[in-house]
Amino acid sequence: VTTTIDPLVGAIPLDLPAVERKFVLPGGFVAGATTCGIKDSGRPDLALIAVTGDPAPTAAVFTQNAFAAAPVAVSKAHLASEGTGSQGLASAVISTSGCANAATGAAGEADQIAIAEHLASTLGVPVGRILCLSTGIIGTRLPVDLVAAGIDRLVPAGLSSEPSGLEAAAEALRTTDSHAKVATTTVTLLDADGLAARSVRVTGIAKGVGMIHPSMATMLAILTTDADVDQDTLHGLLQGAATKTWNQLSIDGDTSTNDTVFLLASGAAGAARVAQRSPAAVTLGAAIEAVARDLARQQAADGEGAATLITCQVTGAADDRDARAVARSVVSSSLVKAAVHGRDPNWGRLAGAAGNANARLDPTRARIAIAGQVVYDGTRDGPVPFDRDAARAAMNAPEVLFRLDLGLGDGIGEAFGCDLTEEYVRENSEYTT
Amino acid sequence: VTTTIDPLVGAIPLDLPAVERKFVLPGGFVAGATTCGIKDSGRPDLALIAVTGDPAPTAAVFTQNAFAAAPVAVSKAHLASEGTGSQGLASAVISTSGCANAATGAAGEADQIAIAEHLASTLGVPVGRILCLSTGIIGTRLPVDLVAAGIDRLVPAGLSSEPSGLEAAAEALRTTDSHAKVATTTVTLLDADGLAARSVRVTGIAKGVGMIHPSMATMLAILTTDADVDQDTLHGLLQGAATKTWNQLSIDGDTSTNDTVFLLASGAAGAARVAQRSPAAVTLGAAIEAVARDLARQQAADGEGAATLITCQVTGAADDRDARAVARSVVSSSLVKAAVHGRDPNWGRLAGAAGNANARLDPTRARIAIAGQVVYDGTRDGPVPFDRDAARAAMNAPEVLFRLDLGLGDGIGEAFGCDLTEEYVRENSEYTT
Repeated sequence: VTTTIDPLVGAIPLDLPAVERKFVLPGGFVAGATTCGIKDSGRPDLALIAVTGDPAPTAAVFTQNAFAAAPVAVSKAHLASEGTGSQGLASAVISTSGCANAATGAAGEADQIAIAEHLASTLGVPVGRILCLSTGIIGTRLPVDLVAAGIDRLVPAGLSSEPSGLEAAAEALRTTDSHAKVATTTVTLLDADGLAARSVRVTGIAKGVGMIHPSMATMLAILTTDADVDQDTLHGLLQGAATKTWNQLSIDGDTSTNDTVFLLASGAAGAARVAQRSPAAVTLGAAIEAVARDLARQQAADGEGAATLITCQVTGAADDRDARAVARSVVSSSLVKAAVHGRDPNWGRLAGAAGNANARLDPTRARIAIAGQVVYDGTRDGPVPFDRDAARAAMNAPEVLFRLDLGLGDGIGEAFGCDLTEEYVRENSEYTT
Repeated sequence: VTTTIDPLVGAIPLDLPAVERKFVLPGGFVAGATTCGIKDSGRPDLALIAVTGDPAPTAAVFTQNAFAAAPVAVSKAHLASEGTGSQGLASAVISTSGCANAATGAAGEADQIAIAEHLASTLGVPVGRILCLSTGIIGTRLPVDLVAAGIDRLVPAGLSSEPSGLEAAAEALRTTDSHAKVATTTVTLLDADGLAARSVRVTGIAKGVGMIHPSMATMLAILTTDADVDQDTLHGLLQGAATKTWNQLSIDGDTSTNDTVFLLASGAAGAARVAQRSPAAVTLGAAIEAVARDLARQQAADGEGAATLITCQVTGAADDRDARAVARSVVSSSLVKAAVHGRDPNWGRLAGAAGNANARLDPTRARIAIAGQVVYDGTRDGPVPFDRDAARAAMNAPEVLFRLDLGLGDGIGEAFGCDLTEEYVRENSEYTT
């Protein structure tokens, strides 16, 4: 059968290093967590990652939401004190879960600053080097005294460079996530003379299984590396990775009030400083992207109520931006998500969602494949007979792959989502404020 | 309690004429329907509205979907023959339901043209004056012979200016709608000299309870009026009305491959020609908007699996465009929709969705009310204590009203949506192609 040897079949090869889901911190960092009492459940709710040496060049990506939370405003201001606001220097990241500290006005911002000041004086660093994350219910205040007491218990006795410290921190980030999320990789960076090679590590932890979930949970991630990188280069690498990974992740279609990703570089690996646009920057960027991509995929697979990770890969777009837009539109469509839940190879919904992406798309040149079978070929008048039972069976899996080739150019891109289930509706309608 | 006299409470007053949900055609039109056999169910699937006199100036709004269906392409081409493509002259609108004729390539377009040609020769009009609508499953072909036989049965014996003719046509448009949708109103237009007044009628029928539903159903509407209006003026009035009504309607967040609205003006009322930007144009525009708004609200209330119509009205925005964007973002949010299903006055989700609208918004000036109670006031540091039980009770209703005042300017706007239920997921996941 010709459809099985079509280039649409199979995933796009990506030139990224392999990752492991192991709790391994890069050199120069310690982590830990405690229970300070924000959550009624008594689960850990205070996480801390600290830099052991000089303050780390740091890059950040923040939510675009106009109702951005207090920790977002405070972190931007602190990064701006020795940088631009989306990059700067940091000594520690503190995360509280159970309360988003969003829509809490000036009082909420003062709470967040008080917590940062307490941590700064405990660590003996300027307050401008403290970054903040919060996640949980909107419109409630942080219990500043409880958080301060938690910091006193955690610093320094509760911080460790061992796997247990990072695992505790990842656990304490969680709200509705079913498990803590981690990804780590190592790459070898060549020095400027192209000779002396040194291995560096990139590790990320993340939480958030509702893309927006302003009453309960949002998307947070902390990436660390022991590479030696300046703010500017680091920011470019993080932006590039986020564009291809977290900005291509949709669970329920919105952007939360608290979404934040931090990337801190300790330089502790002893490798040469990574110069902008150097081969080492490309290698490190791939490592950052690999970690970000794996975390984003873990989040989609763990989407609220979801059973199936949806990956949509697009080739042949006019450019990469169009490819990403089409992929994102497909994984964001409620009807596509419901069809996946029903194991229904309903390619009309893929076509409709792709056509809705506001990207260059010509139905007479586009082709669509579901789980390895071509189902639509616009160059041959559209619908292609296919084995529906085989498609249904292939969709009854932890992951389903949709492939579209637009037949227009060299643009490629991918996006990640999950099926829409009755359980998602129940989780989000039965929850009461 | 101060919150009960807040201007946020209650709906925005709109200067629109009242509508009735009665099947009354304006003068100069006949309508009817038959069962030609596209649908397996044996339900009516062929609808026709025809102009009895000279061809009617006609305006159209089409889907922006890149996978636009054959009837969209054919209707655009026909309108272009004596107009611009989004306006022109028409003698009849033929609608087939059960097959979308989308993603069917050149063969599907030839099918649609053959049907238009058959109707044109039956009516004795140029084929360029036939407009087409189709709705139903994507990727299947129209049975041209069955449709042609249906046309032969319907013309002229099955067409009538009586209510039964329009009701039959509205019924035959339906796929997943639970009932046929109609709205009608009359307004009095002053002549150019401001004296001799004449009443004109605007009537619309619509179908579509999944905003995109490419395998089964899409949003279609046919509006008719017996006012005497040129193409240009008519197009301006329809665009203005659609911007405030159908473009503010979201059921599941996408734009379908077949969405089409037609507005035909017969001139049969004998009123003077409506001049562009005249007082009569304003009056007629309000009538068109009133009909469009009522149909859009009927569609939202009948949304797949939905139990509650969500209306979000926004005041105090920097401009109307921002107000509409915020309103649309609120009614489109899966989390807001699930909260309504759970009768949960979860205003954090409203704030999050509003902040995600890409509109000018300052959390310290915005205020939010749910079903008549202020729940967030940014000018007073945010959260406002409110009666949650009363809010829950008010949300347990066929319609819930959210009001946001942004405190920035005079912009107002509204949007319509529905709750997200387990039934929506079941309907859309258990359906199999």
